[in-house]
Amino acid sequence: MRKVAIVGVGMSKFGEEWTRGFRDMMIEAGSRAIADCNLHGEEIDGIYVGTMAPGSLVGQEHIGALVADSMGLTPVPATRVEAACASGGVALRSGYMAIASGMHDCVVVGGVEKMTDTPGNEVASALGGAGDQEWELFMGATFPAIYALMARRHMLEYGTTEEQMAAVAVKNHANSAKNKYAHFQNEITLDTVMKSKYVASPLKLFDCAPITDGAAVAVLMPLEKAKKYCEQPIEIVASAQASDALALHSRTSMTSLRATQVAAKKAYELAGITPKDVDIVEVHDCFTIAEIMAIEDLGFFKKGEGGKASAEGKTALNSEISVNTSGGLKGCGHPVGATGVKQAVEVVWQLRGKAEGRQVKDCDVGMTHNVGGSGATSVIHVMKRA
Amino acid sequence: MRKVAIVGVGMSKFGEEWTRGFRDMMIEAGSRAIADCNLHGEEIDGIYVGTMAPGSLVGQEHIGALVADSMGLTPVPATRVEAACASGGVALRSGYMAIASGMHDCVVVGGVEKMTDTPGNEVASALGGAGDQEWELFMGATFPAIYALMARRHMLEYGTTEEQMAAVAVKNHANSAKNKYAHFQNEITLDTVMKSKYVASPLKLFDCAPITDGAAVAVLMPLEKAKKYCEQPIEIVASAQASDALALHSRTSMTSLRATQVAAKKAYELAGITPKDVDIVEVHDCFTIAEIMAIEDLGFFKKGEGGKASAEGKTALNSEISVNTSGGLKGCGHPVGATGVKQAVEVVWQLRGKAEGRQVKDCDVGMTHNVGGSGATSVIHVMKRA
Repeated sequence: MRKVAIVGVGMSKFGEEWTRGFRDMMIEAGSRAIADCNLHGEEIDGIYVGTMAPGSLVGQEHIGALVADSMGLTPVPATRVEAACASGGVALRSGYMAIASGMHDCVVVGGVEKMTDTPGNEVASALGGAGDQEWELFMGATFPAIYALMARRHMLEYGTTEEQMAAVAVKNHANSAKNKYAHFQNEITLDTVMKSKYVASPLKLFDCAPITDGAAVAVLMPLEKAKKYCEQPIEIVASAQASDALALHSRTSMTSLRATQVAAKKAYELAGITPKDVDIVEVHDCFTIAEIMAIEDLGFFKKGEGGKASAEGKTALNSEISVNTSGGLKGCGHPVGATGVKQAVEVVWQLRGKAEGRQVKDCDVGMTHNVGGSGATSVIHVMKRA
Repeated sequence: MRKVAIVGVGMSKFGEEWTRGFRDMMIEAGSRAIADCNLHGEEIDGIYVGTMAPGSLVGQEHIGALVADSMGLTPVPATRVEAACASGGVALRSGYMAIASGMHDCVVVGGVEKMTDTPGNEVASALGGAGDQEWELFMGATFPAIYALMARRHMLEYGTTEEQMAAVAVKNHANSAKNKYAHFQNEITLDTVMKSKYVASPLKLFDCAPITDGAAVAVLMPLEKAKKYCEQPIEIVASAQASDALALHSRTSMTSLRATQVAAKKAYELAGITPKDVDIVEVHDCFTIAEIMAIEDLGFFKKGEGGKASAEGKTALNSEISVNTSGGLKGCGHPVGATGVKQAVEVVWQLRGKAEGRQVKDCDVGMTHNVGGSGATSVIHVMKRA
């Protein structure tokens, strides 16, 4: 297999973008990524797009062709991939595979979701389709309810507290306040989180990632030609993915995501590193409890100690491990299909030393962790400077 | 890149399956494909599933994980791909790439769609999402209307007649009547087609593929280990894909699909063959005019002569080129995401010499041609006995 590098990245401003549609955001992010590596359109020979539910949200499927068409890139082969909230991560993995295999030489990987501006209750029901529709959504179990069950169990088994979860939100807002592309550009206090209303107890409003519009794009090439396009190519040294049961009640644990554990083990093997070697990680914090479970399942902290570590500041910028420097899903926002690609964009910026006010010092190894639904898909990538 | 072979195939009975859901059909097809190559579940290390609109049709996204979960295959990485009606074809291509790259050693490729049994008008609007939602569906242009425009233009430019289109339907029913998995197992006459009501003039009811439920599965492996699993591995000697504008009005032609022409050129180059070498082809006949355009765009007949060739029987079983031996989308049925994989299943059966009453003699080279929407995606595969 050929070595694969990211040569260009770009994203749209995340937020509630009432005046901009699916295509506009994709074009904005795509143009930035292409300009970032001085690429000519005719060099692109493959497109992968991650998006979760455009059929339900904007009445449009066939998103690969839509992107090729909107960006003036036809007849380049263009494919949409979907794994719920991990759609962006699987798109990145598909692009990686396309370059590694030798089938393509320059692939654009996009992630996008248009979530606001829908006429009715589409967002809650579309997101419910990430879980088990027959056994969960149909019975009324929306995503906050499912993650609330995991949080309660984590509290019971390990003594995790609501204050510890709140600390995750405070840290992620502190980071997103330094990110001009973030949905939320304001810091918050522990008090703000603790006094916010319950969405599904013990999860309060500020424990939950928002509904966001946005797009993110990365350009991938074989490593050997990457230097021609950018000063600092970022190599993808591991790509790993795993699946699990859709429904929470079919899992072996409510406080760990097996898919994350399996994918992480594989990713560390492929990259030849241990959790200690990772300097920055973008984890999937759709709810604050999800970040706590992720930093445990990825091996940065022992199972049950993620809450405590978060409250003690061990995951803040330039601490033991800098977690969600972009602001994560909570602070930067969560346009579902875009998130997995945005995580890669942030890691590339950090490894290049171009993350502005939130730059982590001595940052050599970065990781992205993107989860679909309540954990039925997990996709992990490890990156280093080439 | 490694050479790739199909070692096992299976499909569910296509039809209006009122008592069987999405998961049931996938399990039925998957079990048959796995049994077909004496595979143990633990050998499978990757899953790709093509499906177009399960979010709109059955309220479920995250289909990769759903399939891994339903088939007891977690934690195997599982990804859904989508390119509207070409979703099955892009799934096959993803599986091909996964094996060719060396990232996976045994991949299950599935295609599935559950289209009947939806509560309202979901099917027409979901299918409309394969075209340009903003410029076509929103204005009332459903798929029969779009293909009717192409048919009218083909009639004007080349003198193609309604009788010639009807001949395609008659031939495809003659083939599907010999296929126990087909939706329609009855022959029809030219009179039946010509007397059927107009859906969108000049296309009549019998010019249109039906709404069908079904699933199809293929198991892929590196060629060097394929012989251990089956008597006759079928090698995929070419995989090619191209895109075009979603909306018909943005295309350079209304009587050719540029995406098909581009993908076909690439496929012939990769396989080192010409159209004359192809013995059987499964083309995307969502409407009879689509088969006529396909056999022209693929180079089997000159542009404008596809209608005449069809009426003269040149595409029937064991004629100049055997087109849609399965019965095609018209006779075998069109569960959208399943179609591209079902085409491969039929070609494998033909190349193995196991196509029962519809077996083509001296069948050495087979091709599949799967189209998304009205032509914005085209995926072509060429196969030979290994």
